[in-house]
Amino acid sequence: MAQGCEVRHLSTQLSVNFGERMDTVSTSSAPPSGMRDFLPEEVALRDWATAKLVEVYQSFGFTRIETPALENINNLRRSEGGENLQLIFEILKRGDNLHRVLSRSGPDSGSDITKDLADLGLRFDLTVPLVRFYANNQASLPNPFKAIQIGSVWRAESAQAGRFRQFTQCDIDTFGIKTETAEMELIEATAEALLALGFENFTVRLNDRRILSSLADECGFEPEHHDNLFIQIDKLDKIGIDGVERELTGHGHAPDAVQKLRKYLREFSESQSMEKAMSSMAKFAESGALEQIGNVISAITSVSKSKYKIVFDPTLVRGMGYYTGQIFEISDPGYSSSIAGGGRYDKMVGKMSGRDVPAVGFSIGFERIISILADRKSDLSDKRDKLAVIYDPDRDDMTAVLKAAQAKRDEGKVVSLLPRKKEMKKQLDALSAQGFSMFATYRSDSGQLEIKLLS
Amino acid sequence: MAQGCEVRHLSTQLSVNFGERMDTVSTSSAPPSGMRDFLPEEVALRDWATAKLVEVYQSFGFTRIETPALENINNLRRSEGGENLQLIFEILKRGDNLHRVLSRSGPDSGSDITKDLADLGLRFDLTVPLVRFYANNQASLPNPFKAIQIGSVWRAESAQAGRFRQFTQCDIDTFGIKTETAEMELIEATAEALLALGFENFTVRLNDRRILSSLADECGFEPEHHDNLFIQIDKLDKIGIDGVERELTGHGHAPDAVQKLRKYLREFSESQSMEKAMSSMAKFAESGALEQIGNVISAITSVSKSKYKIVFDPTLVRGMGYYTGQIFEISDPGYSSSIAGGGRYDKMVGKMSGRDVPAVGFSIGFERIISILADRKSDLSDKRDKLAVIYDPDRDDMTAVLKAAQAKRDEGKVVSLLPRKKEMKKQLDALSAQGFSMFATYRSDSGQLEIKLLS
Repeated sequence: MAQGCEVRHLSTQLSVNFGERMDTVSTSSAPPSGMRDFLPEEVALRDWATAKLVEVYQSFGFTRIETPALENINNLRRSEGGENLQLIFEILKRGDNLHRVLSRSGPDSGSDITKDLADLGLRFDLTVPLVRFYANNQASLPNPFKAIQIGSVWRAESAQAGRFRQFTQCDIDTFGIKTETAEMELIEATAEALLALGFENFTVRLNDRRILSSLADECGFEPEHHDNLFIQIDKLDKIGIDGVERELTGHGHAPDAVQKLRKYLREFSESQSMEKAMSSMAKFAESGALEQIGNVISAITSVSKSKYKIVFDPTLVRGMGYYTGQIFEISDPGYSSSIAGGGRYDKMVGKMSGRDVPAVGFSIGFERIISILADRKSDLSDKRDKLAVIYDPDRDDMTAVLKAAQAKRDEGKVVSLLPRKKEMKKQLDALSAQGFSMFATYRSDSGQLEIKLLS
Repeated sequence: MAQGCEVRHLSTQLSVNFGERMDTVSTSSAPPSGMRDFLPEEVALRDWATAKLVEVYQSFGFTRIETPALENINNLRRSEGGENLQLIFEILKRGDNLHRVLSRSGPDSGSDITKDLADLGLRFDLTVPLVRFYANNQASLPNPFKAIQIGSVWRAESAQAGRFRQFTQCDIDTFGIKTETAEMELIEATAEALLALGFENFTVRLNDRRILSSLADECGFEPEHHDNLFIQIDKLDKIGIDGVERELTGHGHAPDAVQKLRKYLREFSESQSMEKAMSSMAKFAESGALEQIGNVISAITSVSKSKYKIVFDPTLVRGMGYYTGQIFEISDPGYSSSIAGGGRYDKMVGKMSGRDVPAVGFSIGFERIISILADRKSDLSDKRDKLAVIYDPDRDDMTAVLKAAQAKRDEGKVVSLLPRKKEMKKQLDALSAQGFSMFATYRSDSGQLEIKLLS
């Protein structure tokens, strides 16, 4: 009823804007489709994980930076964002700029203005903004520069279960180191961060884009078909060798090349040791890439203290087009998709600033991590004692109650003032469920709080 | 030069979209107008302040929540956001939904489609989303509910110095407490948070919207002119009593009423004590509002331990239209505008959910606080020892270097691996400037790090 009233009230106010369409406009208190409200216990978990990640990353010398949520629309559209370019939330131009565009439009005008209506867009990842940030601030940053970024990104995904339209990404990136030491640091820091969150026995899979290209050349795939080839190889985990063969044939790749690739894929999948997998690549892959793979595996094996594994996986692809060297992913036993991924992208800064800068990044799948941690129901509540001071607004001297609460807070307790409810028993049960360990009432005779434990 | 190349390269890629307008599209690595990149030391300050604020707020029983950056456009447009409704960044509809709207448009079609092009908008404050959040999640939240919100908001301000188009707000709000104890808690918590950040000797100014209305009635202003009247009174600090009189006359308010108001304003400004100011209101203001003002002032004075002041200010207005009771601001000596502001808004939840819920909020001007703290140049660097391990990628055994670095990290140090540069002296000076206290090189003969202090 009252909601109906509200709509009538608003219709007056908005009649200019909505006119006869008013009846179709619904009032809703739900967040927009694909986006989420986070309740206090959810934020507590996200804050706890963020603090852990930042603490570990900082111990490796990484420092936090931030960029705006919005980027100029052309910076986003021109980036190598792959499929994400189709998912940009675009910001409508305003005022005269908008009216100028609209005045050129119309069903019969023949001009498509859809690309001219927006001047800004919400970032769809943290890498495009990071590269712009680095190009913009290089002179003020140390060299090499090691960045932590934790922030929201937005994608206009079609609404379906598990696909969020706003979600958090958590990246570390190093600029200015051309040797594989940068990869070693990123992999070790990310693995240590996951250990700090309670993950263990996970596997780092390592490959190099140059090895993938050599493999494709060796099998006889044309360079211009490599991108599509890699997309199909990327499905190996899910559809197996036969599935990949069917996909490749279906996409019209040369049958000879497909058969040769099939032979290699079988060889890798049957090779019991990393050495064997590497030696089967050695025939054709450039030796530098293989040597670097070996160096990283040896260093990480040495610092992992057997808490996690690192393996060479010549079938690892990674989706993004901008990688130029090593690529890596982390998979956790019991979860089919990866929980972290990254790689080297030495050409991206140059495309923005005109001068290439070596760069490597590693991104933790923050939302996946959080959903795994939430399942484990870790106890993350505030470790301080929680005291509920229950007052009677009609009778208590509130100045005295505030002073008494302040004294308890000065002792290091969390102290929340709450008005007395009619059903005291029910109120105390609810406080206990919210994590309060004690409650207190004010005794006007003594001028003190009387504190009791909550069961 | 290389940048020129880049534009040519891009023009191929984008010719479909931009056609002959390509020449006007510039490549820039700057963030969008009015928005900011934050360098590591800036983020460190913002993170430090955020952690302090959250710690204090939590000690009062407040808990953090989060809402999406985007809201359905109608929720924003229908809100009582005042001038902010003109500053919404709107999200363009996508796909068929967009094409359907555009097909109705055209210079001659006579239909204004500008309000139909967007389905979502970026939040312009944290209060509108909070009220929606509360209406949406009330059943899962404790009652009363005490929320902390720290997050970005966006406003399409015209670009000018000091006006940011993305900035952080920092709010605490209490739902479900109808007595002025809620105000006391919010004011005490906000004041304690400011003290924790190093602010002191600030003044909390307190008024009540009901008192302002009584004053306006008493002077003879028509109820429908109250909003404009309050906007002019709000300028008192800046333009003085004569200035307010000129503005009121200019806006066509009745001369009798203006003269009567002038008399009261003079009386307040000359009253040396709060008691005197309150007694001059007592003639006409409803006694409940005045009594509550007295209660809050007495309680806060008692817990403030003389570290800050609280005063009654019958000329305090606050800009937003949604306040229903007490309103308050905090001003810091030496800064002309306020550093925090808030008030009671008991009718907003009802407009969303159909049932009124008492609500009070207090917002710290986060960006102003940060700019004051930045001027004070507090030392916020990581308190852990910072060690730079300088390696030679051509000669050092990187596995051994990584292991040695790990051992130092296990001791609690921040350890950053950095490749040796040609000019070692210059490199060490730069590290010292970045806050490193030590550096180390790897001795292959001993297999150990050789650690030296940086001056």
